[in-house]
Amino acid sequence: MSEDDGSLSEDGGSDETVRKVEPSRLPLPLTPPPFENFIPEGDTRKRSVCRSCGQILYQNPRIVVGAVCVMNRRFLLVRRAIEPRIGAWTFPCGYMEMNETTREGAAREVREEAGAHVEVEDLLAVYSLPHISQVHMMYRARMLTPDHAPGEESLESRLFEWSDIPWDDLAFPTTHWTLRDYARADGRTDFAPFDRPEPG
Amino acid sequence: MSEDDGSLSEDGGSDETVRKVEPSRLPLPLTPPPFENFIPEGDTRKRSVCRSCGQILYQNPRIVVGAVCVMNRRFLLVRRAIEPRIGAWTFPCGYMEMNETTREGAAREVREEAGAHVEVEDLLAVYSLPHISQVHMMYRARMLTPDHAPGEESLESRLFEWSDIPWDDLAFPTTHWTLRDYARADGRTDFAPFDRPEPG
Repeated sequence: MSEDDGSLSEDGGSDETVRKVEPSRLPLPLTPPPFENFIPEGDTRKRSVCRSCGQILYQNPRIVVGAVCVMNRRFLLVRRAIEPRIGAWTFPCGYMEMNETTREGAAREVREEAGAHVEVEDLLAVYSLPHISQVHMMYRARMLTPDHAPGEESLESRLFEWSDIPWDDLAFPTTHWTLRDYARADGRTDFAPFDRPEPG
Repeated sequence: MSEDDGSLSEDGGSDETVRKVEPSRLPLPLTPPPFENFIPEGDTRKRSVCRSCGQILYQNPRIVVGAVCVMNRRFLLVRRAIEPRIGAWTFPCGYMEMNETTREGAAREVREEAGAHVEVEDLLAVYSLPHISQVHMMYRARMLTPDHAPGEESLESRLFEWSDIPWDDLAFPTTHWTLRDYARADGRTDFAPFDRPEPG
Protein backbone atom coordinates (compact mmCIF):
# COMPACT_ATOMS: atom_id res chain seq x y z
CA MET A 1 0.00 0.00 0.00
CA SER A 2 1.34 3.40 -0.87
CA GLU A 3 1.80 5.77 2.02
CA ASP A 4 -0.43 8.50 0.69
CA ASP A 5 -3.38 6.84 -0.96
CA GLY A 6 -5.51 7.12 2.17
CA SER A 7 -6.67 3.59 1.59
CA LEU A 8 -8.46 1.09 3.75
CA SER A 9 -7.84 -1.56 1.11
CA GLU A 10 -4.87 -3.80 1.01
CA ASP A 11 -3.78 -3.43 -2.58
CA GLY A 12 -5.17 0.02 -3.35
CA GLY A 13 -6.57 -1.42 -6.59
CA SER A 14 -9.99 -0.98 -8.08
CA ASP A 15 -11.20 -4.41 -7.03
CA GLU A 16 -11.00 -3.57 -3.35
CA THR A 17 -14.57 -4.84 -2.96
CA VAL A 18 -13.36 -8.40 -3.28
CA ARG A 19 -12.06 -10.65 -0.51
CA LYS A 20 -11.65 -14.39 -0.61
CA VAL A 21 -13.05 -17.13 1.54
CA GLU A 22 -10.89 -20.24 2.00
CA PRO A 23 -11.97 -22.54 -0.86
CA SER A 24 -12.04 -25.51 1.54
CA ARG A 25 -14.84 -23.84 3.51
CA LEU A 26 -17.02 -23.57 0.45
CA PRO A 27 -19.65 -25.89 -0.95
CA LEU A 28 -18.99 -27.74 -4.20
CA PRO A 29 -17.23 -25.66 -6.85
CA LEU A 30 -19.30 -25.01 -9.96
CA THR A 31 -18.60 -23.27 -13.25
CA PRO A 32 -17.25 -19.71 -13.13
CA PRO A 33 -19.90 -17.01 -12.90
CA PRO A 34 -20.95 -16.02 -16.43
CA PHE A 35 -20.35 -12.27 -16.14
CA GLU A 36 -19.19 -10.31 -19.15
CA ASN A 37 -18.14 -6.67 -19.49
CA PHE A 38 -19.79 -4.47 -22.10
CA ILE A 39 -21.65 -1.16 -22.42
CA PRO A 40 -25.39 -1.81 -21.97
CA GLU A 41 -27.72 0.06 -24.32
CA GLY A 42 -28.40 3.60 -23.12
CA ASP A 43 -25.37 3.54 -20.85
CA THR A 44 -21.97 5.19 -21.31
CA ARG A 45 -19.73 2.79 -19.39
CA LYS A 46 -18.80 -0.85 -19.44
CA ARG A 47 -20.75 -2.80 -16.83
CA SER A 48 -20.54 -6.34 -15.62
CA VAL A 49 -23.54 -8.23 -17.05
CA CYS A 50 -24.59 -11.77 -16.19
CA ARG A 51 -24.92 -13.73 -19.42
CA SER A 52 -27.28 -16.13 -17.74
CA CYS A 53 -29.94 -13.81 -16.34
CA GLY A 54 -29.16 -10.38 -17.82
CA GLN A 55 -28.59 -8.65 -14.49
CA ILE A 56 -26.19 -5.73 -14.53
CA LEU A 57 -23.80 -5.70 -11.61
CA TYR A 58 -23.04 -2.04 -10.96
CA GLN A 59 -19.82 -1.13 -9.23
CA ASN A 60 -19.94 2.12 -7.29
CA PRO A 61 -17.68 3.89 -4.83
CA ARG A 62 -17.84 2.76 -1.24
CA ILE A 63 -18.30 4.90 1.85
CA VAL A 64 -16.03 4.69 4.87
CA VAL A 65 -17.56 6.16 8.04
CA GLY A 66 -15.60 6.98 11.16
CA ALA A 67 -15.62 9.11 14.30
CA VAL A 68 -13.08 11.02 16.36
CA CYS A 69 -14.41 10.10 19.82
CA VAL A 70 -13.66 12.44 22.68
CA MET A 71 -14.00 12.18 26.47
CA ASN A 72 -12.64 15.02 28.63
CA ARG A 73 -10.27 16.17 25.87
CA ARG A 74 -8.94 12.65 25.46
CA PHE A 75 -9.17 10.78 22.17
CA LEU A 76 -10.17 7.18 21.65
CA LEU A 77 -7.89 5.23 19.35
CA VAL A 78 -7.67 1.53 18.53
CA ARG A 79 -4.71 -0.50 17.37
CA ARG A 80 -5.58 -2.52 14.30
CA ALA A 81 -5.64 -6.31 14.59
CA ILE A 82 -6.18 -6.82 10.85
CA GLU A 83 -4.51 -5.93 7.60
CA PRO A 84 -3.91 -3.45 6.17
CA ARG A 85 -1.67 -1.65 8.68
CA ILE A 86 -1.95 -4.25 11.41
CA GLY A 87 -0.57 -2.85 14.68
CA ALA A 88 -1.03 0.81 13.73
CA TRP A 89 -3.43 3.23 15.44
CA THR A 90 -6.61 4.81 14.14
CA PHE A 91 -9.87 6.20 15.41
CA PRO A 92 -12.75 3.75 14.75
CA CYS A 93 -13.81 3.68 11.10
CA GLY A 94 -14.87 1.20 8.45
CA TYR A 95 -17.12 0.48 5.51
CA MET A 96 -20.68 1.69 5.78
CA GLU A 97 -23.18 -1.19 5.68
CA MET A 98 -26.56 -1.55 4.00
CA ASN A 99 -29.64 -0.08 5.72
CA GLU A 100 -27.93 2.34 8.06
CA THR A 101 -27.37 6.09 8.06
CA THR A 102 -23.87 7.54 7.92
CA ARG A 103 -24.12 8.48 11.62
CA GLU A 104 -25.42 5.04 12.57
CA GLY A 105 -22.53 3.50 10.64
CA ALA A 106 -19.99 5.67 12.47
CA ALA A 107 -21.52 4.77 15.86
CA ARG A 108 -21.53 1.07 14.89
CA GLU A 109 -17.84 1.16 14.01
CA VAL A 110 -17.10 2.75 17.40
CA ARG A 111 -19.04 -0.01 19.17
CA GLU A 112 -17.50 -2.81 17.11
CA GLU A 113 -13.88 -1.67 17.15
CA ALA A 114 -13.62 0.14 20.49
CA GLY A 115 -16.57 -1.10 22.59
CA ALA A 116 -17.60 2.49 23.26
CA HIS A 117 -20.91 4.32 23.09
CA VAL A 118 -21.00 7.75 21.51
CA GLU A 119 -23.25 10.50 20.35
CA VAL A 120 -22.19 11.29 16.79
CA GLU A 121 -21.99 15.05 16.30
CA ASP A 122 -20.70 17.22 13.41
CA LEU A 123 -19.55 16.04 10.02
CA LEU A 124 -15.89 16.93 10.22
CA ALA A 125 -14.63 15.88 6.80
CA VAL A 126 -15.51 14.38 3.43
CA TYR A 127 -12.52 12.91 1.63
CA SER A 128 -12.80 11.56 -1.91
CA LEU A 129 -10.20 8.96 -2.82
CA PRO A 130 -10.98 8.45 -6.51
CA HIS A 131 -8.01 6.16 -7.23
CA ILE A 132 -9.55 3.57 -4.91
CA SER A 133 -13.19 4.69 -5.35
CA GLN A 134 -13.84 5.51 -1.72
CA VAL A 135 -15.53 8.42 0.02
CA HIS A 136 -14.61 8.86 3.69
CA MET A 137 -17.08 10.64 5.93
CA MET A 138 -15.57 11.44 9.30
CA TYR A 139 -17.57 12.75 12.28
CA ARG A 140 -16.85 14.20 15.67
CA ALA A 141 -18.39 12.17 18.48
CA ARG A 142 -18.86 12.56 22.22
CA MET A 143 -18.30 9.48 24.38
CA LEU A 144 -21.32 8.86 26.60
CA THR A 145 -19.30 6.90 29.16
CA PRO A 146 -15.53 6.46 29.59
CA ASP A 147 -15.84 2.71 28.90
CA HIS A 148 -14.06 1.15 25.97
CA ALA A 149 -12.58 -2.21 25.03
CA PRO A 150 -10.96 -3.61 21.88
CA GLY A 151 -13.31 -5.44 19.52
CA GLU A 152 -12.45 -8.40 17.28
CA GLU A 153 -10.62 -6.22 14.77
CA SER A 154 -8.60 -4.32 17.40
CA LEU A 155 -5.59 -5.35 19.47
CA GLU A 156 -6.05 -2.53 21.98
CA SER A 157 -8.17 0.53 22.66
CA ARG A 158 -6.88 3.55 24.56
CA LEU A 159 -7.72 7.15 25.45
CA PHE A 160 -4.90 9.53 24.54
CA GLU A 161 -4.14 13.09 25.48
CA TRP A 162 -3.74 15.06 22.24
CA SER A 163 0.02 15.38 22.69
CA ASP A 164 0.37 11.65 23.40
CA ILE A 165 -1.32 10.52 20.19
CA PRO A 166 1.12 8.15 18.41
CA TRP A 167 1.52 10.45 15.41
CA ASP A 168 4.26 8.34 13.86
CA ASP A 169 2.24 5.19 14.10
CA LEU A 170 -1.15 6.18 12.68
CA ALA A 171 -2.65 3.72 10.23
CA PHE A 172 -3.64 5.78 7.19
CA PRO A 173 -3.15 9.17 5.57
CA THR A 174 -6.85 9.79 6.27
CA THR A 175 -6.16 9.19 9.98
CA HIS A 176 -3.68 12.08 9.88
CA TRP A 177 -5.95 14.28 7.78
CA THR A 178 -8.91 13.76 10.08
CA LEU A 179 -7.04 14.49 13.30
CA ARG A 180 -5.46 17.58 11.73
CA ASP A 181 -8.89 18.74 10.54
CA TYR A 182 -10.26 18.03 14.02
CA ALA A 183 -7.76 20.55 15.37
CA ARG A 184 -8.73 23.09 12.69
CA ALA A 185 -12.40 22.76 13.66
CA ASP A 186 -11.79 22.86 17.41
CA GLY A 187 -14.19 25.21 19.17
CA ARG A 188 -16.35 25.68 16.06
CA THR A 189 -19.85 24.29 15.75
CA ASP A 190 -21.18 25.38 12.35
CA PHE A 191 -18.62 24.87 9.61
CA ALA A 192 -18.28 23.31 6.18
CA PRO A 193 -16.73 19.85 6.42
CA PHE A 194 -13.12 19.72 5.35
CA ASP A 195 -12.64 18.43 1.87
CA ARG A 196 -10.03 16.49 -0.04
CA PRO A 197 -9.09 17.02 -2.70
CA GLU A 198 -9.50 20.73 -1.92
CA PRO A 199 -12.18 22.18 -4.21
CA GLY A 200 -11.35 24.48 -7.11
CA MET B 1 -42.57 4.10 -5.21
CA SER B 2 -43.68 5.69 -2.01
CA GLU B 3 -43.88 9.46 -2.00
CA ASP B 4 -41.48 10.00 0.85
CA ASP B 5 -38.70 7.49 0.43
CA GLY B 6 -36.50 9.95 -1.43
CA SER B 7 -35.58 7.19 -3.81
CA LEU B 8 -33.83 7.17 -7.15
CA SER B 9 -34.63 3.49 -7.47
CA GLU B 10 -37.72 2.16 -9.09
CA ASP B 11 -38.85 -0.36 -6.52
CA GLY B 12 -37.33 1.11 -3.38
CA GLY B 13 -36.07 -2.38 -2.51
CA SER B 14 -32.67 -3.40 -1.27
CA ASP B 15 -31.53 -4.80 -4.61
CA GLU B 16 -31.61 -1.42 -6.29
CA THR B 17 -28.14 -2.14 -7.66
CA VAL B 18 -29.61 -4.50 -10.19
CA ARG B 19 -30.99 -3.67 -13.59
CA LYS B 20 -31.67 -6.06 -16.44
CA VAL B 21 -30.42 -6.19 -19.99
CA GLU B 22 -32.78 -7.62 -22.62
CA PRO B 23 -31.93 -11.36 -22.66
CA SER B 24 -32.00 -11.36 -26.47
CA ARG B 25 -29.04 -8.96 -26.51
CA LEU B 26 -26.92 -11.31 -24.46
CA PRO B 27 -24.47 -14.00 -25.47
CA LEU B 28 -25.39 -17.64 -24.85
CA PRO B 29 -27.03 -18.27 -21.48
CA LEU B 30 -25.01 -20.42 -19.11
CA THR B 31 -25.70 -21.83 -15.68
CA PRO B 32 -26.81 -19.41 -12.94
CA PRO B 33 -24.00 -17.71 -11.05
CA PRO B 34 -23.02 -19.87 -8.07
CA PHE B 35 -23.37 -17.26 -5.33
CA GLU B 36 -24.50 -18.32 -1.89
CA ASN B 37 -25.33 -16.24 1.20
CA PHE B 38 -23.63 -17.01 4.50
CA ILE B 39 -21.57 -15.29 7.22
CA PRO B 40 -17.87 -15.59 6.32
CA GLU B 41 -15.52 -16.39 9.20
CA GLY B 42 -14.59 -13.28 11.18
CA ASP B 43 -17.54 -11.36 9.78
CA THR B 44 -20.84 -10.47 11.45
CA ARG B 45 -23.16 -10.35 8.45
CA LYS B 46 -24.32 -12.60 5.67
CA ARG B 47 -22.42 -11.91 2.47
CA SER B 48 -22.78 -13.17 -1.07
CA VAL B 49 -19.95 -15.64 -1.71
CA CYS B 50 -19.10 -17.25 -5.05
CA ARG B 51 -19.01 -21.03 -4.55
CA SER B 52 -16.77 -21.38 -7.53
CA CYS B 53 -13.90 -19.01 -6.67
CA GLY B 54 -14.52 -17.97 -3.05
CA GLN B 55 -14.86 -14.26 -3.79
CA ILE B 56 -17.07 -12.32 -1.43
CA LEU B 57 -19.36 -9.87 -3.17
CA TYR B 58 -19.89 -7.03 -0.71
CA GLN B 59 -23.01 -4.94 -1.00
CA ASN B 60 -22.66 -1.40 0.29
CA PRO B 61 -24.75 1.76 0.18
CA ARG B 62 -24.54 3.82 -2.96
CA ILE B 63 -23.86 7.54 -3.26
CA VAL B 64 -26.06 9.88 -5.27
CA VAL B 65 -24.36 13.16 -6.18
CA GLY B 66 -26.17 16.23 -7.46
CA ALA B 67 -25.94 20.00 -7.80
CA VAL B 68 -28.30 22.94 -7.54
CA CYS B 69 -26.93 24.96 -10.46
CA VAL B 70 -27.46 28.69 -10.45
CA MET B 71 -27.02 31.45 -13.05
CA ASN B 72 -28.16 34.98 -12.16
CA ARG B 73 -30.51 33.69 -9.45
CA ARG B 74 -32.08 31.26 -11.88
CA PHE B 75 -32.06 27.51 -11.26
CA LEU B 76 -31.29 24.79 -13.76
CA LEU B 77 -33.76 21.92 -13.76
CA VAL B 78 -34.22 18.98 -16.10
CA ARG B 79 -37.34 17.00 -16.86
CA ARG B 80 -36.68 13.28 -16.50
CA ALA B 81 -36.84 11.12 -19.64
CA ILE B 82 -36.45 7.88 -17.69
CA GLU B 83 -38.14 6.01 -14.89
CA PRO B 84 -38.63 6.49 -12.03
CA ARG B 85 -40.67 9.73 -12.17
CA ILE B 86 -40.49 10.17 -15.91
CA GLY B 87 -41.69 13.67 -16.87
CA ALA B 88 -41.02 15.20 -13.44
CA TRP B 89 -38.43 17.91 -12.72
CA THR B 90 -35.21 17.71 -10.75
CA PHE B 91 -31.83 19.36 -10.57
CA PRO B 92 -29.13 17.14 -12.14
CA CYS B 93 -28.16 14.20 -9.93
CA GLY B 94 -27.34 10.52 -10.20
CA TYR B 95 -25.20 7.66 -8.97
CA MET B 96 -21.56 8.42 -8.31
CA GLU B 97 -19.26 6.38 -10.56
CA MET B 98 -15.94 4.66 -9.87
CA ASN B 99 -12.75 6.73 -9.90
CA GLU B 100 -14.24 10.16 -9.45
CA THR B 101 -14.57 12.56 -6.53
CA THR B 102 -17.98 13.58 -5.21
CA ARG B 103 -17.57 17.01 -6.84
CA GLU B 104 -16.45 15.51 -10.15
CA GLY B 105 -19.48 13.23 -10.02
CA ALA B 106 -21.84 16.13 -9.42
CA ALA B 107 -20.27 18.11 -12.30
CA ARG B 108 -20.51 15.03 -14.56
CA GLU B 109 -24.22 14.63 -13.83
CA VAL B 110 -24.76 18.31 -14.71
CA ARG B 111 -22.95 17.82 -18.03
CA GLU B 112 -24.71 14.56 -18.85
CA GLU B 113 -28.24 15.51 -17.89
CA ALA B 114 -28.30 19.25 -18.59
CA GLY B 115 -25.36 19.92 -20.96
CA ALA B 116 -24.12 22.65 -18.63
CA HIS B 117 -20.70 23.48 -17.19
CA VAL B 118 -20.45 24.41 -13.56
CA GLU B 119 -18.07 25.10 -10.74
CA VAL B 120 -19.18 22.90 -7.87
CA GLU B 121 -19.17 24.90 -4.63
CA ASP B 122 -20.40 24.11 -1.09
CA LEU B 123 -21.71 20.80 0.16
CA LEU B 124 -25.32 21.73 0.83
CA ALA B 125 -26.72 18.50 2.21
CA VAL B 126 -26.04 14.89 3.14
CA TYR B 127 -29.16 12.74 3.24
CA SER B 128 -29.05 9.14 4.42
CA LEU B 129 -31.83 6.96 3.05
CA PRO B 130 -31.19 3.73 4.96
CA HIS B 131 -34.31 1.91 3.72
CA ILE B 132 -32.86 1.99 0.20
CA SER B 133 -29.18 2.12 1.26
CA GLN B 134 -28.38 5.42 -0.42
CA VAL B 135 -26.47 8.50 0.70
CA HIS B 136 -27.27 11.67 -1.26
CA MET B 137 -24.61 14.38 -1.36
CA MET B 138 -25.98 17.59 -2.83
CA TYR B 139 -23.84 20.59 -3.75
CA ARG B 140 -24.37 24.19 -4.73
CA ALA B 141 -22.88 25.00 -8.14
CA ARG B 142 -22.27 28.11 -10.22
CA MET B 143 -22.98 27.89 -13.94
CA LEU B 144 -19.93 29.02 -15.90
CA THR B 145 -21.99 29.88 -18.98
CA PRO B 146 -25.76 30.17 -19.49
CA ASP B 147 -25.70 27.27 -21.97
CA HIS B 148 -27.65 24.13 -21.27
CA ALA B 149 -29.37 21.37 -23.24
CA PRO B 150 -31.16 18.15 -22.29
CA GLY B 151 -28.99 15.02 -22.29
CA GLU B 152 -30.10 11.48 -23.14
CA GLU B 153 -31.85 11.01 -19.82
CA SER B 154 -33.68 14.36 -19.95
CA LEU B 155 -36.69 15.51 -21.96
CA GLU B 156 -36.00 19.18 -21.39
CA SER B 157 -33.66 21.52 -19.49
CA ARG B 158 -34.72 24.96 -18.33
CA LEU B 159 -33.62 27.87 -16.12
CA PHE B 160 -36.33 28.83 -13.62
CA GLU B 161 -36.84 31.84 -11.43
CA TRP B 162 -37.22 30.58 -7.86
CA SER B 163 -40.94 31.36 -7.78
CA ASP B 164 -41.49 29.60 -11.11
CA ILE B 165 -39.97 26.30 -10.01
CA PRO B 166 -42.58 23.58 -10.66
CA TRP B 167 -42.94 22.72 -6.97
CA ASP B 168 -45.85 20.37 -7.54
CA ASP B 169 -44.01 18.45 -10.20
CA LEU B 170 -40.62 17.76 -8.63
CA ALA B 171 -39.34 14.23 -9.02
CA PHE B 172 -38.30 13.11 -5.53
CA PRO B 173 -38.62 14.02 -1.87
CA THR B 174 -34.86 14.72 -1.95
CA THR B 175 -35.50 17.26 -4.73
CA HIS B 176 -37.80 19.15 -2.36
CA TRP B 177 -35.46 18.78 0.61
CA THR B 178 -32.47 20.05 -1.33
CA LEU B 179 -34.20 23.11 -2.75
CA ARG B 180 -35.64 23.92 0.69
CA ASP B 181 -32.18 23.54 2.23
CA TYR B 182 -30.75 25.71 -0.55
CA ALA B 183 -33.06 28.49 0.61
CA ARG B 184 -32.02 27.96 4.25
CA ALA B 185 -28.34 28.29 3.28
CA ASP B 186 -28.84 31.29 1.02
CA GLY B 187 -26.24 33.99 1.68
CA ARG B 188 -24.16 31.73 3.93
CA THR B 189 -20.75 30.41 2.93
CA ASP B 190 -19.45 28.38 5.88
CA PHE B 191 -22.12 26.10 7.30
CA ALA B 192 -22.65 22.48 8.26
CA PRO B 193 -24.39 20.58 5.47
CA PHE B 194 -28.05 19.89 6.15
CA ASP B 195 -28.72 16.39 7.37
CA ARG B 196 -31.49 13.87 7.13
CA PRO B 197 -32.48 12.17 9.24
CA GLU B 198 -31.86 15.10 11.62
CA PRO B 199 -29.15 14.09 14.12
CA GLY B 200 -29.92 13.33 17.76
